[in-house]
Amino acid sequence: MSNRVAAKESHVDVLIVGAGPAGVMACNALAKNGVNVRIVDIRPVKVAAGHADGLQPRTLEVLRSYGLADKVFEKGNQMHMAAFYNPSPSGGIELTDRVPDVTAPTARFPFEITLHQGEIEDIFLSSMRNYGVEVDRPITPMSMEILAAESEYPVKTVLQHLDGSQETEIVHSKYVVGADGAHSWVRKAFEIPMVGEQTNYIWGVIDLVPDTDFPDIRNRTAIHSNNGSCMVIPREGDKVRLYIQLDEKSGLLNEAGRIDKGKATPEHLLEIARKSMHPYKIATPDTFEWWTLYVIGQRVASSFSVNDRVFIVGDACHTHSPKAGQGMNASMGDSHNLAWKLTQVLRGWSDKRLLETYSFERKQYAEDLINFDKQFASLFSGKPRSEDNQDGVSHADFLKIFQTFGGFTSGIGIHYADSLITRSALQSSVQHLTVGQRILPQIFLRAADFRPEEIQDLLPSDGCFKILVFTGDSSVPSQLQKILDVANAMEETLGALAISCGVGQIHDMFKILGISAASKLSVRYNELPELFRAHWSRILIDDFDVSGKKGGDGYKNYGVGPEGAVVVVRPDGYVGLVGPFSSQGVSELGEYFKGFMKA
Amino acid sequence: MSNRVAAKESHVDVLIVGAGPAGVMACNALAKNGVNVRIVDIRPVKVAAGHADGLQPRTLEVLRSYGLADKVFEKGNQMHMAAFYNPSPSGGIELTDRVPDVTAPTARFPFEITLHQGEIEDIFLSSMRNYGVEVDRPITPMSMEILAAESEYPVKTVLQHLDGSQETEIVHSKYVVGADGAHSWVRKAFEIPMVGEQTNYIWGVIDLVPDTDFPDIRNRTAIHSNNGSCMVIPREGDKVRLYIQLDEKSGLLNEAGRIDKGKATPEHLLEIARKSMHPYKIATPDTFEWWTLYVIGQRVASSFSVNDRVFIVGDACHTHSPKAGQGMNASMGDSHNLAWKLTQVLRGWSDKRLLETYSFERKQYAEDLINFDKQFASLFSGKPRSEDNQDGVSHADFLKIFQTFGGFTSGIGIHYADSLITRSALQSSVQHLTVGQRILPQIFLRAADFRPEEIQDLLPSDGCFKILVFTGDSSVPSQLQKILDVANAMEETLGALAISCGVGQIHDMFKILGISAASKLSVRYNELPELFRAHWSRILIDDFDVSGKKGGDGYKNYGVGPEGAVVVVRPDGYVGLVGPFSSQGVSELGEYFKGFMKA
Repeated sequence: MSNRVAAKESHVDVLIVGAGPAGVMACNALAKNGVNVRIVDIRPVKVAAGHADGLQPRTLEVLRSYGLADKVFEKGNQMHMAAFYNPSPSGGIELTDRVPDVTAPTARFPFEITLHQGEIEDIFLSSMRNYGVEVDRPITPMSMEILAAESEYPVKTVLQHLDGSQETEIVHSKYVVGADGAHSWVRKAFEIPMVGEQTNYIWGVIDLVPDTDFPDIRNRTAIHSNNGSCMVIPREGDKVRLYIQLDEKSGLLNEAGRIDKGKATPEHLLEIARKSMHPYKIATPDTFEWWTLYVIGQRVASSFSVNDRVFIVGDACHTHSPKAGQGMNASMGDSHNLAWKLTQVLRGWSDKRLLETYSFERKQYAEDLINFDKQFASLFSGKPRSEDNQDGVSHADFLKIFQTFGGFTSGIGIHYADSLITRSALQSSVQHLTVGQRILPQIFLRAADFRPEEIQDLLPSDGCFKILVFTGDSSVPSQLQKILDVANAMEETLGALAISCGVGQIHDMFKILGISAASKLSVRYNELPELFRAHWSRILIDDFDVSGKKGGDGYKNYGVGPEGAVVVVRPDGYVGLVGPFSSQGVSELGEYFKGFMKA
Repeated sequence: MSNRVAAKESHVDVLIVGAGPAGVMACNALAKNGVNVRIVDIRPVKVAAGHADGLQPRTLEVLRSYGLADKVFEKGNQMHMAAFYNPSPSGGIELTDRVPDVTAPTARFPFEITLHQGEIEDIFLSSMRNYGVEVDRPITPMSMEILAAESEYPVKTVLQHLDGSQETEIVHSKYVVGADGAHSWVRKAFEIPMVGEQTNYIWGVIDLVPDTDFPDIRNRTAIHSNNGSCMVIPREGDKVRLYIQLDEKSGLLNEAGRIDKGKATPEHLLEIARKSMHPYKIATPDTFEWWTLYVIGQRVASSFSVNDRVFIVGDACHTHSPKAGQGMNASMGDSHNLAWKLTQVLRGWSDKRLLETYSFERKQYAEDLINFDKQFASLFSGKPRSEDNQDGVSHADFLKIFQTFGGFTSGIGIHYADSLITRSALQSSVQHLTVGQRILPQIFLRAADFRPEEIQDLLPSDGCFKILVFTGDSSVPSQLQKILDVANAMEETLGALAISCGVGQIHDMFKILGISAASKLSVRYNELPELFRAHWSRILIDDFDVSGKKGGDGYKNYGVGPEGAVVVVRPDGYVGLVGPFSSQGVSELGEYFKGFMKA
């Protein structure tokens, strides 16, 4: 007789391994879209302090699109200004410059937010709970295999529970998302190599509530001194993080130039920071909230997916230095990119080919990120230029790279290349909305009640494509006739797509907004075709609000002429297609969707 | 033997009778300030639908100061535009004009919000719960008397529970707030007469989700037709309220011109509205959310308090027509005015004379409101001007009064006259902050981290006076010396007040903000005196934020010169005193507070 019990087996559409920022981002997005999802994590509890904590302007826009930004704003610290300190002629350091921390001019939120990773994860966990999803922990995968593609649930994963029971179970899923960090089990299971190298830059990190006379302790401050480099990152409440460069003088390296972890204490790290901050003082606190040491590794996985069934996201596929504040943002960006594609395919609307664009878009981005990071980290770790060291890094050098890469580090400049879902052929029809970039923030007025609305807020991350129809001036009778004609053609095209995708209503699959050039006085919102107003709130006008302070110039800012235009915004907020407001535009629209949807 | 049980007796600092908008506003404010408060209501459950539902711009600012605006914004409908329809030459009505609904140029929120009274009460009830206070219901007072003033709890109230038990209890309180509505038991108990009269204007109100081709159904729309007047008030979701004028043709009046309630149905009211909306159509819905009939009464209580121990607030002391959207706002404004005064006295900081200013300020306001209301209601109820009726009301007449009273109807223009707490003698030292009016919204930057902050958000309704110290440019050494001198004098003056009030720290009693004219590049926030920076976030500068879109010109907008100024903001957000930034200013500050505080 055997007392062996058969392992529990279950089926799920998407299994996510890892509940760090990348994992919970993917899980929340999928759960919000109604996807059947499960998430497991090896840790018995979530992160309590420290770790990654910077959110870029683009990440804030993305969080907003999931309805999660308010809590981040409520709890987080905002960094508006970057300050630079350099050696002073009288010894010690002095303030050289203060510049905007965010240099991307179109950023809707012109600042970064810092908030500890545990709080950020909490915001996702709480949102996921609204969709009935919790993290199962502590659980680790033991094996994972992709069966023949014709199977409905082709990925078979054996999970082991790490609590008392030590039970194993088998999960059959359609897809797996490996969000299990830099030492990713999933990546290793499929033997995906990381390409790149460790650097010689070694840094210490301490989190503390400082007692100091340093005037820029609440700004993102880069300190280059003749006694080492240091970066100040203010955080929520009165907390501050210090990044401290460690070199041979630190007494923390062994002969091979490697960290001797046994010697390091946060007090020792603060002592090193104190030297670079001279003549400013900083007291040793009673406690340090968190501290760590790290060596910068700048590596990218050679592939981001296996057969488009198993995907890796976040630190599992790219690692880089933390000082440019990119890590968590890049991780969440991966999941944001992947989640809507899985949603579209699982809903049966889009072809599985859509999933190929995940690796295409995010691997390129990760490689660009590493290239930027190398330059930034090398400059940051360099010695300051001085009388004795004319080869050192000058403030001008540092500021130049800081600002040149502003679009990149803010996340605002991300530009996906042409693909199935990104067609720039008719770019000239909407000059300032770059196909492949995120939709520019712009305030329009709702035509029925003249309430100003940020267009980004009308394009939530819900797994659906959005169609912005710039109709021209609907209060001009001849234009109104044209509008009715284009609407008829569009209804036919989209109606056919809905039918072939098995969707009852066009509006269940696409969110359509009509944006008229009529004024507050001339518009009659209910003259616009019903296709453009599934609800009265869907008709917008391009005019200033009653205070004259919000909105207006939308056509101009977007580069749309009075003849109108059609813009497709992908479910992740990136512009997928632009075209003229005409039968040609409608036919382009049809071709675009037929390129990856079931047609 | 008797089985009579002695009634339960209890003591409370403030007993509030009535949990409508005025009652919950008072209760929440007092509870937030740590006052020992109890609130009872005669109704077994709170309002579920209908009733008052309009929140003015100033009320939104006030709600924000209690941290309650976000929920109102989240749930409420915004009215940005007012539309006017008048008789068309071709019969029926036509759009005459659309104008901003709010004409007060300094309104921070240039719109009104509509949200049903139950939801608004809910927001307060939920906030009160955070302070451990719930409404006791159903309970009504049976008797109330004010004992000799030397008693610590001079107001004795007998309450009866209206649930099964029918128990009575005795509550001894320091103060009573009667917020028990137009038929106020408290007002009647003290025989306070209402002064004023009923009018002949009779109106019907219906709440519905309309199916209509009327283009301004989502705006606040005044319809003057030859078939009667009607007002459209859009509400949360897709709901709309219609106010419908009833006259002899309505078939709802008896021979005496009074409503025959038996004849009225919401369908009948809609039928009357339909006539005035012709040629636009509106379908009869399956259900009406709420409906009522009312006669306008415009009356003010002859007194708002009894011995400054029992106060009446809201509908208990003033009633007026609902169409100008004033009722709930005036009610909440009463409580907002009273709550901080009770708080100051109960904390032992201010003399009981402070309470006299409640009647002084709010009775005058209520009388102004009635005078406005009479003009507005009479114009609104008038016939439109036409060929046949040259004496009728023209659009120009109506628009003129609509806009003339814009400051008033928005609540922004409220101006309290000079009193103990409102001293305009040195008005010229800050030209554009009118003493007695609410502090103008203005964005400043926090000097430590350059985060833009609306000054109103730094002045929460917490029962404390705020002192804004405009220091001039602290980065100029000679000015910095002056700043240190003024700070020393101020510390002495405020320190003496704190001691005489029995408060340990100046900052426990006053919130002080230092506002420097230094720039983003020149400021060192920690050069300012410690008196002005109880926390690093308390030092502000008058400069534009990094995007150049927020803040700047604060000194100019307020009319403060480069030499600086001192501004006292009352706990309710109204300017109490302005003076120069000098020893004279400090001495004025001392005199002001000694006028009503324990000194």
